[in-house]
Amino acid sequence: MGRMFINSIGHYVPHHIVANAYFSRTYGIPEEDIVSRSGILERRKALSRENTNTMALEAVKDALPSLPFPVGEVNLIVGATYSPFDTVGTLAHAVQHQYQIPDTKVLSISSACSSVCNAVEIVDAFFRTGKADKALVVASEHNTAYFNEGDKASGFLWGDGAAAMFITRERFSADDLEILDVNTSGLGSTGQGINGVYLRPRDGGIKMPFGRDVFLFACKYMHLETEQILRKNQMEPGDLAYLVPHQANLRIIDYVRKEMNLREEQVIVNVDKLGNTGCASSLIGLSQHYRSFKKNDVVVITVFGGGYSSGAILMKK
Amino acid sequence: MGRMFINSIGHYVPHHIVANAYFSRTYGIPEEDIVSRSGILERRKALSRENTNTMALEAVKDALPSLPFPVGEVNLIVGATYSPFDTVGTLAHAVQHQYQIPDTKVLSISSACSSVCNAVEIVDAFFRTGKADKALVVASEHNTAYFNEGDKASGFLWGDGAAAMFITRERFSADDLEILDVNTSGLGSTGQGINGVYLRPRDGGIKMPFGRDVFLFACKYMHLETEQILRKNQMEPGDLAYLVPHQANLRIIDYVRKEMNLREEQVIVNVDKLGNTGCASSLIGLSQHYRSFKKNDVVVITVFGGGYSSGAILMKK
Repeated sequence: MGRMFINSIGHYVPHHIVANAYFSRTYGIPEEDIVSRSGILERRKALSRENTNTMALEAVKDALPSLPFPVGEVNLIVGATYSPFDTVGTLAHAVQHQYQIPDTKVLSISSACSSVCNAVEIVDAFFRTGKADKALVVASEHNTAYFNEGDKASGFLWGDGAAAMFITRERFSADDLEILDVNTSGLGSTGQGINGVYLRPRDGGIKMPFGRDVFLFACKYMHLETEQILRKNQMEPGDLAYLVPHQANLRIIDYVRKEMNLREEQVIVNVDKLGNTGCASSLIGLSQHYRSFKKNDVVVITVFGGGYSSGAILMKK
Repeated sequence: MGRMFINSIGHYVPHHIVANAYFSRTYGIPEEDIVSRSGILERRKALSRENTNTMALEAVKDALPSLPFPVGEVNLIVGATYSPFDTVGTLAHAVQHQYQIPDTKVLSISSACSSVCNAVEIVDAFFRTGKADKALVVASEHNTAYFNEGDKASGFLWGDGAAAMFITRERFSADDLEILDVNTSGLGSTGQGINGVYLRPRDGGIKMPFGRDVFLFACKYMHLETEQILRKNQMEPGDLAYLVPHQANLRIIDYVRKEMNLREEQVIVNVDKLGNTGCASSLIGLSQHYRSFKKNDVVVITVFGGGYSSGAILMKK
């Protein structure tokens, strides 16, 4: 790894709240069942004028006040989403368009919920090969545009939201987190793989036919990715100040926390208030708690996603 | 650039042909108008059991007989599409799943029609930073799943197809093309940018509201990308044996050919028989003509795409 620092981070969630009462009425299941199965109390739903691209722009806007250089100096924009508004004029292109950044590489990626790890891995490789030196990673999910209202098993899980972070090779302030390492793993050959959970825009939207398979592998790989990235960097779970897990389900997060002997206050959670916001979820969590990290705190993002896929990012303040 | 070689390439197009007569009847326009406006005589349409992922798998299968190492040794799969079947279980994950490749990085990208250039740029960066050393780039477009039958202005342009290429740091045979350089440019701040042509899965599919803007910038940037990548590598247009342009419209291709003083037989064309197959189009062209290149031939892929975006790949046999 070359040196990389997060110089600014921001997030956005839509203002409209959908409480469990709505799904309780729609599906005829008690609200307590939704809570006991997922830990979700409410989630956000984009308004009709909002979409993946507009939420991405709001997240970038939230990061701008603390950005220590002009946004026009960005020379790599990596968008991340599996719930696109536009697959041609992607969220990354929308940011370039909005801020009229003339000279930048632009692409958007999907490796499902792991995409932010893949995006950071691309930033690292592009920095080290001199292809870029100022990057913006922007993740945005508009799950409610694709979710299946009729899906009693998982319809209540999904929420909308976005997050953005600017990364360079320099520390600009004491607030910056250094990115020490990143890992990604393709797991398409594991378990149900591409059939466990999917989003088929022309064929039914989001579905999770093998929820238990997804659950078990998420528990396994989110734990494994964290242990591995710590060990690879001569650290151990006891060195961890905060874990920022992918926010799919509170039961998965609790399992990983207990396996790693972490205290509740060490694990950042937003699934209770936001539902599963896909690849944006861990970055939203990082953004929400960014000011509370202390000097030398070690923070790990760990993710398992559909496809399957997994990944982790090791950071230190 | 580190050294990179294409060790095997393959492609797939669906068997079902849709002739201009169909669109002539549907839109009430003469067949000659379709030909004079686009150079397209016919295009392929995926059958109902086919999709972006199945076509990607067929393209990979086509490349396997000449692959000089087991497919299981691949440690980076980059999918490219703007017309996804599944944004979670992406075409790249589908390949990992199909061939049960246990240990590989997997992601899919979209920078519209330029995605293959972005994919090769990621391969280059991952090779040079030691993240991978055997890569598969697979591009697949299922335009007909998203195109708007009612769109008289551009509905007849779109076709389906896929292509795949395996890349390593070694030359395995005299057939291999060496990849000498790659460039990508985000152009979201140019002209109509994200509004020129788009694919909004939940909002009308593919549309091209600013066809003339797209046309003019495609002519400009496909020429510019070619000149720039040649010049950067101490070459000039006279050194070029073959140009493989993005296949959006024969008029754009002809414009670029004339600007560069190339002979017709130097420019690879498949838009006449396949329509616009999106980010797969230039790779399908490269695959179709792969055996006809001679030792020392210099070949350039040049692409302009929605978003906007552009890119080029410089190769030598």
